Amino acid sequence: MATILGQNQYGKAENRVVKITRDGDTHHIKDLNVSVALSGDLEEVHLNGSNANVLPTDTTKNTVFAFAKEYGIESAEQFGIHLARHFVDDIAPMNRARIRIEEYSWERIANSDANSKFIGADEVRHSFVRKGQETRVAQITYDGEKFEVLSGLKDLTVLNSTNSEFWGFIKDKYTTLQEDYDRILATSLSTWWRHNWTCDDERMPNWEKSYEQTKKHLLQAFAETYSLSLQQTMYQMGSRVINSRSEIDEIRMSAPNKHHFRQDLSFCGLDNDAKDGAVYYAADRPYGLIEATILRDGADQRIPVDMTNL
Amino acid sequence: MATILGQNQYGKAENRVVKITRDGDTHHIKDLNVSVALSGDLEEVHLNGSNANVLPTDTTKNTVFAFAKEYGIESAEQFGIHLARHFVDDIAPMNRARIRIEEYSWERIANSDANSKFIGADEVRHSFVRKGQETRVAQITYDGEKFEVLSGLKDLTVLNSTNSEFWGFIKDKYTTLQEDYDRILATSLSTWWRHNWTCDDERMPNWEKSYEQTKKHLLQAFAETYSLSLQQTMYQMGSRVINSRSEIDEIRMSAPNKHHFRQDLSFCGLDNDAKDGAVYYAADRPYGLIEATILRDGADQRIPVDMTNL
Amino acid sequence: MATILGQNQYGKAENRVVKITRDGDTHHIKDLNVSVALSGDLEEVHLNGSNANVLPTDTTKNTVFAFAKEYGIESAEQFGIHLARHFVDDIAPMNRARIRIEEYSWERIANSDANSKFIGADEVRHSFVRKGQETRVAQITYDGEKFEVLSGLKDLTVLNSTNSEFWGFIKDKYTTLQEDYDRILATSLSTWWRHNWTCDDERMPNWEKSYEQTKKHLLQAFAETYSLSLQQTMYQMGSRVINSRSEIDEIRMSAPNKHHFRQDLSFCGLDNDAKDGAVYYAADRPYGLIEATILRDGADQRIPVDMTNL
Amino acid sequence: MATILGQNQYGKAENRVVKITRDGDTHHIKDLNVSVALSGDLEEVHLNGSNANVLPTDTTKNTVFAFAKEYGIESAEQFGIHLARHFVDDIAPMNRARIRIEEYSWERIANSDANSKFIGADEVRHSFVRKGQETRVAQITYDGEKFEVLSGLKDLTVLNSTNSEFWGFIKDKYTTLQEDYDRILATSLSTWWRHNWTCDDERMPNWEKSYEQTKKHLLQAFAETYSLSLQQTMYQMGSRVINSRSEIDEIRMSAPNKHHFRQDLSFCGLDNDAKDGAVYYAADRPYGLIEATILRDGADQRIPVDMTNL
Repeated sequence: MATILGQNQYGKAENRVVKITRDGDTHHIKDLNVSVALSGDLEEVHLNGSNANVLPTDTTKNTVFAFAKEYGIESAEQFGIHLARHFVDDIAPMNRARIRIEEYSWERIANSDANSKFIGADEVRHSFVRKGQETRVAQITYDGEKFEVLSGLKDLTVLNSTNSEFWGFIKDKYTTLQEDYDRILATSLSTWWRHNWTCDDERMPNWEKSYEQTKKHLLQAFAETYSLSLQQTMYQMGSRVINSRSEIDEIRMSAPNKHHFRQDLSFCGLDNDAKDGAVYYAADRPYGLIEATILRDGADQRIPVDMTNL
Repeated sequence: MATILGQNQYGKAENRVVKITRDGDTHHIKDLNVSVALSGDLEEVHLNGSNANVLPTDTTKNTVFAFAKEYGIESAEQFGIHLARHFVDDIAPMNRARIRIEEYSWERIANSDANSKFIGADEVRHSFVRKGQETRVAQITYDGEKFEVLSGLKDLTVLNSTNSEFWGFIKDKYTTLQEDYDRILATSLSTWWRHNWTCDDERMPNWEKSYEQTKKHLLQAFAETYSLSLQQTMYQMGSRVINSRSEIDEIRMSAPNKHHFRQDLSFCGLDNDAKDGAVYYAADRPYGLIEATILRDGADQRIPVDMTNL
Repeated sequence: MATILGQNQYGKAENRVVKITRDGDTHHIKDLNVSVALSGDLEEVHLNGSNANVLPTDTTKNTVFAFAKEYGIESAEQFGIHLARHFVDDIAPMNRARIRIEEYSWERIANSDANSKFIGADEVRHSFVRKGQETRVAQITYDGEKFEVLSGLKDLTVLNSTNSEFWGFIKDKYTTLQEDYDRILATSLSTWWRHNWTCDDERMPNWEKSYEQTKKHLLQAFAETYSLSLQQTMYQMGSRVINSRSEIDEIRMSAPNKHHFRQDLSFCGLDNDAKDGAVYYAADRPYGLIEATILRDGADQRIPVDMTNL
Repeated sequence: MATILGQNQYGKAENRVVKITRDGDTHHIKDLNVSVALSGDLEEVHLNGSNANVLPTDTTKNTVFAFAKEYGIESAEQFGIHLARHFVDDIAPMNRARIRIEEYSWERIANSDANSKFIGADEVRHSFVRKGQETRVAQITYDGEKFEVLSGLKDLTVLNSTNSEFWGFIKDKYTTLQEDYDRILATSLSTWWRHNWTCDDERMPNWEKSYEQTKKHLLQAFAETYSLSLQQTMYQMGSRVINSRSEIDEIRMSAPNKHHFRQDLSFCGLDNDAKDGAVYYAADRPYGLIEATILRDGADQRIPVDMTNL
């Protein structure tokens, strides 16, 4: 046969695992969507249909749920490390595991006032409302020697209603855009960052704290940058993360420019200047799409280009 | 011709209006999705294609943007009342206007510490991150005499990790479900409520406060009800709203029972009891769907049955 | 308590039932998404949480699958009638059942040439590719005496590249739209129609043939109407159905005007007239939304206004 | 600064271009979604916000529409080649352009019978209904010297109702899956293939014919393979493409195993064996996800691993 098998992987995708932990009357929740992809000695199943080296995707699913019970879920990253290690170290034909995780966050529902006629204040320690802001993501890859841990987030929508300009660009025969000295800058951020931790000999980051701090730096750099272009803002966001978090060596960002066009209202005699508080039309498509990797000087560039578009 | 024209309406749907208001350096944002539906003397356009009585949908769009600039957006409800009144009172062929609005809420991005090397603390008064929790909705209908104002929300996802039972139900030959004395109760709430305000002679509610309080009552009643069925929880939620908010006479709720099944882990020798903190599988489909209207005694039932499924 | 219970219903939604029928080597497929909603003597479960009159939604799910096996699926309508009758006639507390169904259609994969080296031509009698055009829908309601059968479709996207004009409309201070004598008319049709069959004493329609013919009439009336407005086209579509299909008394249509704007290319010296074959920008939002009911003269209007927006 | 800029690109995404070509009364339609991504001498805009080397995304949008008018759209691939060449060859700071395109296909609406009372048979030469099956995709990359042309499709949903087995797999402590000798095999295929054409000196493929033939081979190989695993089926599909189409050197496929589980109906005494025509439950999540690259022997592996998951 004139064809050969290239890169391949398989596993169960989108296992929706919810783990409740009870600490007396106070409950905690972890809500994950876990996808497993395994590679290894799998040529036979492709060429001849022999499943002798195939761990069924159903078994990878069962393993996810069993591990959540047996070992708990401290963080998405820790859980993924645990799973990846198992699939490579314990399942003979496998030599690489990649665990992708989405995490949905919840907050507690506030009590009604203390003299509620319904039920005591303690009771809502088990009641949650989904936050619904960004989705947290993680990807853990293990090849039997080293781990690569990416963390990230998607669908974090931010907007500056001023302090954004856009001018001084190339003009050619297809140019119609006017320069703008006071525009809305808005994006729905998708980003992945790479931790420099790779194995148990190194001190493992505090994944939960690292995530919260990185998100905070992204938000603040967005808010506090006076922007001359979305590229500049994005570079500020990424470099603030690299400069502030020593555990992170690389960050990849994808930022759709969610255009808010000032509506022309001259048809009915109305000015609509930004300085007076304007009315904007929030457009869907097309949108500018700005993507970049920012690296710690000397670090390798390892996050794939399309990682932020998945 | 043996056919006749029944109910009909038209207008521009999903106008994405964003209004920024500047109060010195402090900006405020209103982010709406506005849909217009007009009815009136429109038989000719259907039967003969004469547009003599047709206000183009493009004009209804322009009107939405112009009104946002000229009159501002205090609340979705106030804005809808203003628009509905215009289309019926000012456009001769129209005798009914229905304005539907979705509202997306934003919160301010917190400052970095005061001695930030980037930019002063004041600057982020114009920086926002989308909250992303529920979507607020409103529908205003006006027929030239009376208004009907519905408010509501959708996609508010809540979960109780205990205090939910389900037993004592009908058993027939198709029954396999086991009784459960400690289950997760979760739903993604969609609800509309009807205000009893109908015209300018009556005192208008504070729409913003009414919404915040109603959402709070829904959340707290969900959290504080010891549940024997989702129907019971939903009735508690609805009746708490009616009993707590005198401006509301009717509420319609649709609550998909977002099943969280305890994963059977006996295959590998693990117990997975709720009392110890269990692992659950969050299922997509099928889901129970529980719908009900709760009314103030003596009030009319006016919210359509499928309103919560739009 | 000052609150009372209004309309309510419950059941399992979105049961994804696939039935394969084997006729020798030739297989047939029916692919449905079935939602059950039951009403009846259900006040107790809402007020007190007693499930004594509650058939669990899990049981309604089991019933759907068992009926598919025991009785087969001739058509979505026939299957819904069968289910609705069971829930009302056989489950004592229930006095109304509503079955909603989506159907996905498949076509057979064509053989490779007869002397294929792979496998005989007969073998692909069990191989299907999903058509992916419109989604067929049906709703069957039964109250113990009469049935109401609605059929319909959604997401049928059609486009005329000429024979559409729009002019002669109202102009007011918010009007900016230019008249157009050669525009694209495109819509993504959502429609429900009501059969006049209500009980076993009457001759039941051939549901499959009725659906195919109705879809054909809708398509042809869209294609063959020289349009002065989308309202006119929609009325032609509806009245052709009523005039051609005696089993149908009422049709409700919702037609988003999927705007295709001629792109202004004068910036680079290009004309872009419709008559020469133009380039259009297909817009997402906002869109005109045109809705109407067309009735057989003398028939009742029974399809809810928002039925086509679900 | 301790950070450096890595890979970066930008442009306008999702330009929804519809081109009508008129050939007398017969119209033709091309319906594309075009995304532009440019790379080049762009460090300044990231580091300092200088837009001197930035062609605005708005201009890339204008260029897309102008090219559609000026040069027409023969095929997605040809159109992308044309655009990519322009951005690199004509815009000085750019050294790489990547054009991604989705294409939606339409078919003509059949005439009503010749003696239609409505309108002549010829008229519907301008009337189309969207096919709605797979979405065709293309990606053209140009670096000033060579082109790389990928073609592909997504969301092509196929199902074999028999001739699929799964047994002989690894069993460990987490295994519960039963072996199956007659199961449904269904997937929603996403695939990209790479053409070996790279520059004008080589004979360019007929892109339209190549696409139609490749889709046909994929469908037939799926239908005609007796499957012992989805991996085997996928390898057959890929190798048939490589063996049948000399213009293609590499193919990447992603095939979610859309599980159809035979519903256990023993609770009501019903058998549900595959051989008798069974009832299946079509599950949403989790799903097996099988991915592989198949290469012409000697060819480079160049399609990124996640390309089929975008």
